[in-house]
Formats: sequence, C-alpha cells, structure tokens
Amino acid sequence: MSRTAILLTTLQLLVIGGCNSNTPNKNADEEIIALERSALDKWSQSNTRGYVDISADDVTWFDFTPGKQLRIDGIEEFRNFVEPFGKQIPPHKYELANPKVQLYGNTAILTFHWNASTPDGQPMPSWKATSVYNWKDGKWRMVHGHWSVVQTE
Amino acid sequence: MSRTAILLTTLQLLVIGGCNSNTPNKNADEEIIALERSALDKWSQSNTRGYVDISADDVTWFDFTPGKQLRIDGIEEFRNFVEPFGKQIPPHKYELANPKVQLYGNTAILTFHWNASTPDGQPMPSWKATSVYNWKDGKWRMVHGHWSVVQTE
Repeated sequence: MSRTAILLTTLQLLVIGGCNSNTPNKNADEEIIALERSALDKWSQSNTRGYVDISADDVTWFDFTPGKQLRIDGIEEFRNFVEPFGKQIPPHKYELANPKVQLYGNTAILTFHWNASTPDGQPMPSWKATSVYNWKDGKWRMVHGHWSVVQTE
Repeated sequence: MSRTAILLTTLQLLVIGGCNSNTPNKNADEEIIALERSALDKWSQSNTRGYVDISADDVTWFDFTPGKQLRIDGIEEFRNFVEPFGKQIPPHKYELANPKVQLYGNTAILTFHWNASTPDGQPMPSWKATSVYNWKDGKWRMVHGHWSVVQTE
C-alpha cells in the first residue's frame, strides 16, 4: 500500500466516522417507546420522577393543568413543577396506544394516545401526547412534551 | 504544494462538505417563525391552505376538533381534514406570543402561544402550539403539529 493510499483510507474513515459519531442506532423506535414507558410506568404508581429522569437539560413542556399554561423551560423548572404533584395522581393501569416514531437524524418525534383506568376499572380521560427526543452523548433524552385531553363529541 | 498536501486539503474539504451538505443556515429561528406566520396569516383570513403549503409529505397532526382526535398521518390526510373547514374560521387578528425555537441539527421545535380576537375586539380562546420542522432539500417543512387550548383556572 502506498503512502497516498494509506492516507486516503485513513481520511475516508475520518469522513465516515466524523459524520456518524453521534448517530442513534437502528432501534430508535423501540428505545424511545421504552423510555416513554419507563416514565409512564412510574407515573402510574404516583411517581412523576420518571419524566425528569428521561429529560434533557433544555426540555420544554406544555402542561394541561389549569393555571399552569405557560411553557415550562428547562429541567429545573420542569422538576420543580412536576415533582410536587406525584401523590395527587391516583394509581392506574395505562395503555400507550397507537404509537408512531418519526425519525429525523438525531431527533425523533413520538406521538401516541394514552388511555387509562383506575384499579377498579373506571376509565380515566384519554390524552394525546407528543414527546420529542434528541440523541446526544450516546443516549436519547426528551427535549419537549405536549399533552392534551381527547375531546369527546 | 505537494501532491499529498493537495490530497489532504481536498479530503478535508470533503469531510466538512459531506457533513454539512444538508445543514440549515443560521437564521433558522427567524425562518421557522416566518413560515408559521405565513400559515397563521392565511388562517386569520379563513384560509387553511397555509398549513398544507408548509407541511412535509409525512406530516402528523393532533387536532383539537371534538371527534377528530385520532392522529392525522401524512399530507393527503391532513389536506383532506383541514381544507374543508376554512370557511368556518372567523376572520381574526392574532398574536404569535412567547415563541421559542429549539434547534437540533436539521430539526427544530417551535413552541408558542396563540392569542386572538375578532375584528370587533372580542377575545377568542388562547392556544398552546407545538410545530416541529425538518430541514430537507434546502427548505424547512413542518413534520408535526399539536395544538391545545389554554385552560383557565
């Protein structure tokens, strides 16, 4: 192998490596849905910490609580908002229904419907959910969430 | 300049060019807010086509219309849903308030509040809006929208 050929090969590897060094793997859909489930599993046990745990430092959040309609900006604000009301959430069983992941490079949009019922089988209101994830430093983190209640006719 | 040096320079340019060939320019915030305004300007004139015009083929949409709570998937479904009700929207003045753009590579999340009033000054309900944009083939296109009404206390 000539010196030029070695140089060429090395630089080609740099091109490939440089572009892909921060690329999510091929199981993005499953990984992202699993992350969302990890947060919702805790939520169903009256624990709101799961969403804090999966969020990026720059997370933004549109909540549905009356009087909490401003956008929540950043992990500190999100933690301060979400942690206090964990105990107000009744234990429930939930279904993450109709999930779809749109993947654009290092960013993914998860959309789904959340249906739930109390332990004695009473249905709770259903919700539409958008969770946007970004792949950084080798892991997916939620960077935006928006939940809104399903309007019945 | 030696042959090796020329080769090095050429390949360095390839590294830079290869990674950045599909990178949005630095005015992403302004461009994205302008796109959203172009759609909302038409909306305020009872014309829903603006949102179709700025959307990608794979757009998804969570609407707020009672009975239209399934996720809308793809530009055809979105067009068929949104075009018929343009005439039902009263003319209004609107404010795109509190906008924030989170930029992650070729994807950007625009969040804002939409406040509006009728021509005679009556306030309309306010909304929280999430619009996710993706940069492809040299332009930004909306790939997801989620709107929910602001809940008063």
